Amino acid sequence: MARPTPLSGFPEWLPEQRIVEQTVVDRLRQTFEAWGYASIETRAAEPLDQLLRKGEIDKEVYVLRRLHAEQDDADAGLGLHFDLTVPLARYVLEHGGHLNFPFKRYQIQKVWRGERPQEGRYREFLQADIDVIDVDSLSFHFEVEVAQVMSEAFAGLPLPALRMQVNNRNLIEGFYRGIGVADIPGVMRVVDKLDKLSPETIRDLLETEANVTGAAADLVLAFAAISAEDTSFADAVTALGISDPQLDQGLGELVRVIEGTAPLRSGRFSVVADLRIARGLDYYTGTVYETRMAGFDSLGSVCSGGRYDSLASDGSTTYPGVGISFGVTRTLAPLFSRGVIRASRSVPTCVVVAVADEESRPASDAIARALRARGIPVEVSPSAAKFGKQIRYADRRGIPFVWFADADGTSSVKDIRSGEQVPADPTIWQPPTADLRPHLVVEGD
Amino acid sequence: MARPTPLSGFPEWLPEQRIVEQTVVDRLRQTFEAWGYASIETRAAEPLDQLLRKGEIDKEVYVLRRLHAEQDDADAGLGLHFDLTVPLARYVLEHGGHLNFPFKRYQIQKVWRGERPQEGRYREFLQADIDVIDVDSLSFHFEVEVAQVMSEAFAGLPLPALRMQVNNRNLIEGFYRGIGVADIPGVMRVVDKLDKLSPETIRDLLETEANVTGAAADLVLAFAAISAEDTSFADAVTALGISDPQLDQGLGELVRVIEGTAPLRSGRFSVVADLRIARGLDYYTGTVYETRMAGFDSLGSVCSGGRYDSLASDGSTTYPGVGISFGVTRTLAPLFSRGVIRASRSVPTCVVVAVADEESRPASDAIARALRARGIPVEVSPSAAKFGKQIRYADRRGIPFVWFADADGTSSVKDIRSGEQVPADPTIWQPPTADLRPHLVVEGD
Repeated sequence: MARPTPLSGFPEWLPEQRIVEQTVVDRLRQTFEAWGYASIETRAAEPLDQLLRKGEIDKEVYVLRRLHAEQDDADAGLGLHFDLTVPLARYVLEHGGHLNFPFKRYQIQKVWRGERPQEGRYREFLQADIDVIDVDSLSFHFEVEVAQVMSEAFAGLPLPALRMQVNNRNLIEGFYRGIGVADIPGVMRVVDKLDKLSPETIRDLLETEANVTGAAADLVLAFAAISAEDTSFADAVTALGISDPQLDQGLGELVRVIEGTAPLRSGRFSVVADLRIARGLDYYTGTVYETRMAGFDSLGSVCSGGRYDSLASDGSTTYPGVGISFGVTRTLAPLFSRGVIRASRSVPTCVVVAVADEESRPASDAIARALRARGIPVEVSPSAAKFGKQIRYADRRGIPFVWFADADGTSSVKDIRSGEQVPADPTIWQPPTADLRPHLVVEGD
Repeated sequence: MARPTPLSGFPEWLPEQRIVEQTVVDRLRQTFEAWGYASIETRAAEPLDQLLRKGEIDKEVYVLRRLHAEQDDADAGLGLHFDLTVPLARYVLEHGGHLNFPFKRYQIQKVWRGERPQEGRYREFLQADIDVIDVDSLSFHFEVEVAQVMSEAFAGLPLPALRMQVNNRNLIEGFYRGIGVADIPGVMRVVDKLDKLSPETIRDLLETEANVTGAAADLVLAFAAISAEDTSFADAVTALGISDPQLDQGLGELVRVIEGTAPLRSGRFSVVADLRIARGLDYYTGTVYETRMAGFDSLGSVCSGGRYDSLASDGSTTYPGVGISFGVTRTLAPLFSRGVIRASRSVPTCVVVAVADEESRPASDAIARALRARGIPVEVSPSAAKFGKQIRYADRRGIPFVWFADADGTSSVKDIRSGEQVPADPTIWQPPTADLRPHLVVEGD
């Protein structure tokens, strides 16, 4: 078999990159569970008619077929899920009778899209979602909570600075209604282009595409320009002089999200009320979230979501919810390709126990067992080569310690970074906490 | 949308079952990493020509197609992987230049097969594999190690009793050669049926299908009947009076595996030399492993593997290896359907902080923050309903503790199982270790 070539759009990590991904996923999971979110995994395949309910994305779906399928196969008409929201909606409808509501779940799984591969767009990628689903109505405070949970997860991760931009659809719709806009979705679609077009062009488009002119267009642009890391944004909105009950509701809600996430801000993570953010998708009805990573603007949002009044409905019961989805692959892939982040070693191993000769391998195994029994990841040298070669085995993998058993039954451990070697007892020796497991190393830290 | 029906062959767990699966996977990972195995994940899709190299399994493969694929799509001709060994072989060839050998890796991922669904056979299921791969030659001691690693993982899991049956292809082939068998694979295929057919029938088949008669057939059956939890099996083989160098090598190797796993045996886990085990697959060349779960004989083996001299080859370099694969879904699904194992609760949450009224929610949030900061999974009650209803919220999920903030700033915690309520300070209170996280509950324990 010739050396295989990579498959475009299907990124695959080397062991040291996988340790970075595992560390990120572990941190997410730990935070989600600390807030009481339960894990689920859904099957990779969903019926095509479910996947294609939103016409716009149909060409991105991977269809499944058994190589020797029979005509009336039960699994005919299946496709791979392209996100974790459609499967969640189906899971809640299918298993609703066995779930307790409000249902707080997290889900960390691969998803597949047949998109043209490029940086930030993959055909297979890992997503980490949290959602809270309730029956008939959902308390507003969960819109604060999901932002708090993601903020807390990010606060513990050494990624480049992340900036979560929050807005509220009640605020936007109330404001637009208050200034007399007739085509609210049309105005949102135009304002969504503020990232790419100048305010002057947006003003023209408001006129030509959304039928908003003059003073109203100025107000739309003034509103969209409001952005603040504290609740001062509310004063700026009030100063525009527009009055509407839905606007007041949305303003109060957005204040609560900004206040609720304030304690979690740091040099690495900020939350900002940004009234330009609308999220194109029709189904959002309250708070909306997007997240940018400093230095990676072209990636777009790496963590997005919002409140929706109807995740799913079976006719008699409606399930509202709120959720945020973090793109793990989308975030890590460009950090790997630019060398921004790496693991301190390529294996879990903290100690390699040297082997003097094959006859004494059982003695080295016993030392390894004693260390491992106390939670220290350890390997025994694969061969009784010269000690220099055994040290190189550790060094090439970034393993910090090599253990030597002496003929007299005593032993010693060498920190191969400093060269320091000290007598040690495998039943009591502990490595420095920072060396016990691989940790993340960030360029420039 | 009507209530969806389950998809046969694609098992999906409720949150409390998922906690069982997570606990099992965490234990596997913890053990694999304690022995220095590094995690990799491979993409779900492989080129069809790689997946179909072994003709026998071709009808089980799921083929991928983009819904609106163009003629010359780069991802045409892809299928979902049906195991984790074919992807490992491709990964080693593709990334070999960036890997350090011997390469010890673990891989815990879903795989897909278009088989007719039944108990023990699924279309999507989770596998946990460990393998050690080296270049050109692989030290024998890794054949002992992989059995030790899986044994240690099982020893920490409260599953029904597991019995690992080990044999050695050198021992089998040496013995067969020593008694003059010409068609060694043919005899192995017949002996493999000893599970289902009587020794008399096997004796007939040896004659009709493998051209072995009389004394030789008796020796084949006597050899296959040897089984022991200690190294006494070696005496039983020697007593058969056959001499062959490959037999001697295999016997010595099998003794080392049995000795090496002896310390890990318990009432729940045993390792036995069982000379009937051959593993049908041609590519095994040394130790072979199978594992049965007590009370679930019809499942067949839940954890199998062996040594192979050529996992992959690019023409100039050959990669030998040894590996074992544990079927996570295959093992857990029947335990769930028979109610043998469950989690102590359906959510990670250890404490629900009650909310007296919506105005005091921030005070409850602060208590939750203090508890969470010390690693205690905690939720704040979703509503300020009557306390009885808030206690039921916890009770329905199996959450053991409910926390009450009193108006005077003090607070107390109630164990809702015993009803005992005691004053408590959120900055110092600790739950009993057994209650901190959900644990596994096994029927009859």
